[in-house]
Amino acid sequence: MVKRITVMPGDGIGPEVTEAAVEVLRAVARRYGHAFQFTYAAIGGDAIDQYGKPLPDETIAVCEASDAALLGAVGGPKWDQQPSHLRPERGLLDIRKKFDLFTNIRPVKAVPSLLGSSPLKEEVAREVDMVIVRELTSGLYFGEPKQRSPKSAVDTLVYTRAEIERIVDQAFQIARTRKGKVTSVDKANVLETSKLWREVVEERMTAYPDVEVEHMLVDTAAMKLITNPRSFDVIVTENMFGDILSDEASVITGSLGMLPSASTRTDGFGIYEPVHGSAPDIAGQNKANPTAAILSAAMMLKYSFGLHTEAAAVEEAVAGVLEDGYCTGDIAGEGKRVISTGAFAAQVIEELE
Amino acid sequence: MVKRITVMPGDGIGPEVTEAAVEVLRAVARRYGHAFQFTYAAIGGDAIDQYGKPLPDETIAVCEASDAALLGAVGGPKWDQQPSHLRPERGLLDIRKKFDLFTNIRPVKAVPSLLGSSPLKEEVAREVDMVIVRELTSGLYFGEPKQRSPKSAVDTLVYTRAEIERIVDQAFQIARTRKGKVTSVDKANVLETSKLWREVVEERMTAYPDVEVEHMLVDTAAMKLITNPRSFDVIVTENMFGDILSDEASVITGSLGMLPSASTRTDGFGIYEPVHGSAPDIAGQNKANPTAAILSAAMMLKYSFGLHTEAAAVEEAVAGVLEDGYCTGDIAGEGKRVISTGAFAAQVIEELE
Ligand SMILES: [Mg+2]
Ligand SMILES: [Mg+2]
Repeated sequence: MVKRITVMPGDGIGPEVTEAAVEVLRAVARRYGHAFQFTYAAIGGDAIDQYGKPLPDETIAVCEASDAALLGAVGGPKWDQQPSHLRPERGLLDIRKKFDLFTNIRPVKAVPSLLGSSPLKEEVAREVDMVIVRELTSGLYFGEPKQRSPKSAVDTLVYTRAEIERIVDQAFQIARTRKGKVTSVDKANVLETSKLWREVVEERMTAYPDVEVEHMLVDTAAMKLITNPRSFDVIVTENMFGDILSDEASVITGSLGMLPSASTRTDGFGIYEPVHGSAPDIAGQNKANPTAAILSAAMMLKYSFGLHTEAAAVEEAVAGVLEDGYCTGDIAGEGKRVISTGAFAAQVIEELE
Repeated sequence: MVKRITVMPGDGIGPEVTEAAVEVLRAVARRYGHAFQFTYAAIGGDAIDQYGKPLPDETIAVCEASDAALLGAVGGPKWDQQPSHLRPERGLLDIRKKFDLFTNIRPVKAVPSLLGSSPLKEEVAREVDMVIVRELTSGLYFGEPKQRSPKSAVDTLVYTRAEIERIVDQAFQIARTRKGKVTSVDKANVLETSKLWREVVEERMTAYPDVEVEHMLVDTAAMKLITNPRSFDVIVTENMFGDILSDEASVITGSLGMLPSASTRTDGFGIYEPVHGSAPDIAGQNKANPTAAILSAAMMLKYSFGLHTEAAAVEEAVAGVLEDGYCTGDIAGEGKRVISTGAFAAQVIEELE
């Protein structure tokens, strides 16, 4: 398989961790006989420095000519004083919008050796393995009217049936590659948009008779993520509920710094990036944890290229290296062998080969 | 002090647990020289059976003639087939609206002997002591337009400055009786209503220089409730965020069945009720846990009557009984002495006297 991959290293530790992920992708290509072509492009502060804006046309052109993109992280104190349309974070928002990336995919999977860092009891957090599928381009954050006077303010939550259908279909398709269960989260006892959401889920589920569906109110979901996180497989929900629940879910296993994410659309193109930030304080020291970037690359293999075997091999290799006790300094603990960013990637590649 | 208290036992275990709370209030009156006059009124399924609707005019009249109301719980399988305007839960929604109870107060306090039941590690959950102050009568659940067609749906999030001011003031006043810290939760990086909310908080805080204020985004708050719940004192937020966060917070200490709540307005009138439901399966067996109802009565003493010493005495008495190992069956465990609803109330009263 020949695939063109855009690499946007970004700022801070972005370049180091994406490089680790690129090395792992090269190893996958070697082992499984694929050809991955990498083209680098600037985004965020890096793009501001080079082109004067966080998302240059050159970067858009490179992405348009590629099958998927890997992104490191954006932002840092250097650009904190920029006006909001020239902030590094703007690059991320703009590129998702430009490419209509309406599906945000956030997996949360417990790493056995890290359960000690979870705020949850180990018996609650162990074996957690869920994916939150969040609608990313509509809902309360975008609806009009959206205005404010000194006396009052209004935001508008709008969803069209088509917008709900396409995200729900994505969730059903992801569930089919996993445990086959979808939890649709809404507030259908109060919100009209949620009633439409639930109606669409009921309708679309007939096309996926192999997938089990449950409806859950958002406040109940916020509780269950803590009391019984293992009960979830795929959660699908609208933009704002997904924002809150995916951040809540990100801390339950104690491996926040190691979580990957994806923003995709229907044709397979997607941007893959760590949930963590650019960590400018440790940038350039070859000690950042590349796990989230490597797992983001694994998501690319799975969701953009349909290479499920390869994706699983990368995930297993990472898990193997961690179980062998290798780790970067951020998750060091008793009995661990602390290694560099590059050495961690090398271990993963060795495990892969 | 002479106070008129409406008692609405409601359904299921409601009558038993409110009776326990009334007994405790009688003991408080004896010990501290107050006169509490109790008048009973019907709500929920109980009112449907007696009056044909969940909130009869007679109950409204009794509440109007009283200083505060204690409520048990509503609902049960008997009324599950009713149309939505005749459901027991409707009584709760209607009475809050009728009396313009815009402040929902939900304390979450760790009980040392129950930390074992918390999904969080004991070192994370111990000493948690927070109050969530939620705006209850405006926001996305009520704003217009609110409509749905087969092709799309809309809900509207509206807040006026006046609505925000009054709830924020309540939170500041509550913080003054506690650790003096307010965390205002919003999504001011995206929502216009949140920008207005933050503006009002910044403005009102000048009237409370003794209170420390922090702003937090709702997704960050959803994480921090799990990773560092002890860092919160008073959280104030709008209706929907409060709905999600208060339910999330309710499970972190493992004492969900024992949490009280209040719905109040500015003049002191309020309705006090357990967070738990009517538990029809164990109704009438004198084994329900009356802790939430008793702590709701303590909230009434504090928030409606300004009787802080008396409220603290009740809270300490409940804590004392629990620490002595007495409990109802729902929280039984090794080394506990399981007693009945009535016996638990009697122990609290003995501890009080
Ligand atoms: Mg977020
Ligand atoms: Mg709720």
